[in-house]
Amino acid sequence: MNKNVIVGQSGGPTSVINASLAGVFAEAKKANLGTIFGMRNGIKGFLERRNIDMGQYIKDELDVELLKRTPSSFLGSCRYKLPKIEENEEVYHQIFEILNTMGVGYFFYIGGNDSMDTIMKLSAYGEATGSPIRFMGVPKTIDNDLAVTDHSPGFGSAAKYIAATIKELVLDAQVYNNGAVTIVEVMGRNTGWLAAAASLARGADSPGPDLIFLPEITFNVGNFMDKVAKISSQSPAATIVVSEGIKLADGRYVNEIAAENNTVDAFGHKQLSGTASYLSQEVHRNLGVKTRAIEFATIQRCAAHLQSAVDVQEAYAVGAEAVKAAMTGATNRVTVIRRLSSEPYAFGIDAIEIAQMANIEKKVPLEWVTSSRDDVTQEYIDYARPLIQGEVAPYFVGGMPRHIRLS
Amino acid sequence: MNKNVIVGQSGGPTSVINASLAGVFAEAKKANLGTIFGMRNGIKGFLERRNIDMGQYIKDELDVELLKRTPSSFLGSCRYKLPKIEENEEVYHQIFEILNTMGVGYFFYIGGNDSMDTIMKLSAYGEATGSPIRFMGVPKTIDNDLAVTDHSPGFGSAAKYIAATIKELVLDAQVYNNGAVTIVEVMGRNTGWLAAAASLARGADSPGPDLIFLPEITFNVGNFMDKVAKISSQSPAATIVVSEGIKLADGRYVNEIAAENNTVDAFGHKQLSGTASYLSQEVHRNLGVKTRAIEFATIQRCAAHLQSAVDVQEAYAVGAEAVKAAMTGATNRVTVIRRLSSEPYAFGIDAIEIAQMANIEKKVPLEWVTSSRDDVTQEYIDYARPLIQGEVAPYFVGGMPRHIRLS
Repeated sequence: MNKNVIVGQSGGPTSVINASLAGVFAEAKKANLGTIFGMRNGIKGFLERRNIDMGQYIKDELDVELLKRTPSSFLGSCRYKLPKIEENEEVYHQIFEILNTMGVGYFFYIGGNDSMDTIMKLSAYGEATGSPIRFMGVPKTIDNDLAVTDHSPGFGSAAKYIAATIKELVLDAQVYNNGAVTIVEVMGRNTGWLAAAASLARGADSPGPDLIFLPEITFNVGNFMDKVAKISSQSPAATIVVSEGIKLADGRYVNEIAAENNTVDAFGHKQLSGTASYLSQEVHRNLGVKTRAIEFATIQRCAAHLQSAVDVQEAYAVGAEAVKAAMTGATNRVTVIRRLSSEPYAFGIDAIEIAQMANIEKKVPLEWVTSSRDDVTQEYIDYARPLIQGEVAPYFVGGMPRHIRLS
Repeated sequence: MNKNVIVGQSGGPTSVINASLAGVFAEAKKANLGTIFGMRNGIKGFLERRNIDMGQYIKDELDVELLKRTPSSFLGSCRYKLPKIEENEEVYHQIFEILNTMGVGYFFYIGGNDSMDTIMKLSAYGEATGSPIRFMGVPKTIDNDLAVTDHSPGFGSAAKYIAATIKELVLDAQVYNNGAVTIVEVMGRNTGWLAAAASLARGADSPGPDLIFLPEITFNVGNFMDKVAKISSQSPAATIVVSEGIKLADGRYVNEIAAENNTVDAFGHKQLSGTASYLSQEVHRNLGVKTRAIEFATIQRCAAHLQSAVDVQEAYAVGAEAVKAAMTGATNRVTVIRRLSSEPYAFGIDAIEIAQMANIEKKVPLEWVTSSRDDVTQEYIDYARPLIQGEVAPYFVGGMPRHIRLS
């Protein structure tokens, strides 16, 4: 049987997606499986035969440690969705031909929901054609919206960055004692796991954000304005957190209103703006206070200088355990995290059938939202707090975090 | 003679402005000067008699260490400009009455150019009225635009944050290999010291940003577009850094092209934002590529989780040395950093007459800009690199950096 390994990364990058790559690589090496190939830019690059021998780039344990500390996808990524088998069998034929030529026996794909779909389709084709190749998914997403797994690798580090930065921004905002309103926009198109992480900023030394708005709760601009007005009048400065995915009762995203009400510049071009930007302009217009919009943008998914140690450990483990499972014959499966205990925190890894996870979106439970609908409860905090514990200090060289990089 | 001390913070906060406060506090305590008062919200709060006894909040060495690690202004800030003495002598009379009632012999004000102006005026009034009170300025600004001092406390940490984050963003942007253009906007109203710090992201493991545009160089939208088009066609993804203060040949800020109305702060400074957003829309419209605008906003001045150790040490030293100088009788002076050597880096602190610094703006020397006008030379890097060295690890509690906070 073929013993070579191939691994790819797909979808949006995270701070720890390379820790999962390190887990696959190190475990496969330990097991003496064969050549460990990496596909550049996921299945898309694989089809273009842009595959590398990872051993030529990750040469020793220091390289493995650097890989764990390097954000974004070391191998590059893609947003390529495989067609249904019956729609285009040719592409599957081609993929398996390349895999067989490369002597691949184990195929690992690190990604979110779309990547799991890829693994399911490849497994199905493999099974239908009697291929012995094992296909395993390795989960990642900062959004934390994957089903079955207690949480997703990538979430803890993004949550830690968001909470720590909001804690700093609250201090910054309050220096002038002028009732200013800062609106911070956090990622999460359909789920509020990340926006809710702002609550972790609270503690003996910080009030944290004043309000948190999740996509799980219908957003009402009038109610929002009333709440902000009240806080702004009582507080030295208000800090409001909104998910990029908050929606109105009619189903429109809030930033779609922004797009409709777009101002036009001197050349007649529409000025696009995000959710925070739109709401901060509205607050300024309605309440007359100084406002500021801050978008964490892609920083929140690549701020590896503030990785959560628990997240790095788990991201590595879901990679390593996928290799172990594949070697015992598992295929069409994805590794997931089981929470064994919250206090003290302990986790285990299982490999479940991908169909249980693929194409399902896990939202923040409504019971974890306060009755005022503008914050999360202690249950959320108890759930998320263990996931941001510990730090993986970057290796600083010349004052900068050192990374490892292809090409 | 009065032996009590009062200290205030003014202007925009930084990651290390509290390290200077710690330096003043610890040195004054060591010298057994008397009660160390802190004015809340600078001279404005002082006039409202909102002063505190700092010893009730900073109780031991752990508190001093926490203060060094806490971003933003512990005492709060203000943007209050003292009137000219001849315009309103009453306010000076009032200030000195409060100072004398409080038994203050030493007055320290941590801030930028506007704060130095405050110290000059108070010194002048004190001298004219025969007051024995010593007035000392302690410099801070992330902008690094203060004269005489080799660099400003606050700059090193902001530069470290900017460079480290841009290094992460370059990795993030390149995952899709699709010629996308990311435009990152960095603070710096009139000077490009901070935008130039993006160059520090470059190294064996990172190409860093592709282009850097400083306010010192007249900005031309057409030239910009040509350069971006060329890079976008050759690179997996381009990362462009622009200062918020870039201006057209006619003197308008680039964001004024689009901005409807710029509000003006108490010092008559225009409130800028949206340069990256505007340029990214223009690039998308002209080149048809995917673009993304990222603004570091206030994060870059409060990201204490990534402080430069050199910066923290120097910020502390300019505070402590101001106390020493005042005790030897100095007044109407500000502490400055002298670079004694770049390799190995060594610095000393002097106390110079404030008039040498106040109301002068230090720009990036044009010789440190490349002939292509879209990057900085090795001289800038040699200047800035020592200032981002070393880290001051936050004290993490419950996964979050711990701060110390008034109220």
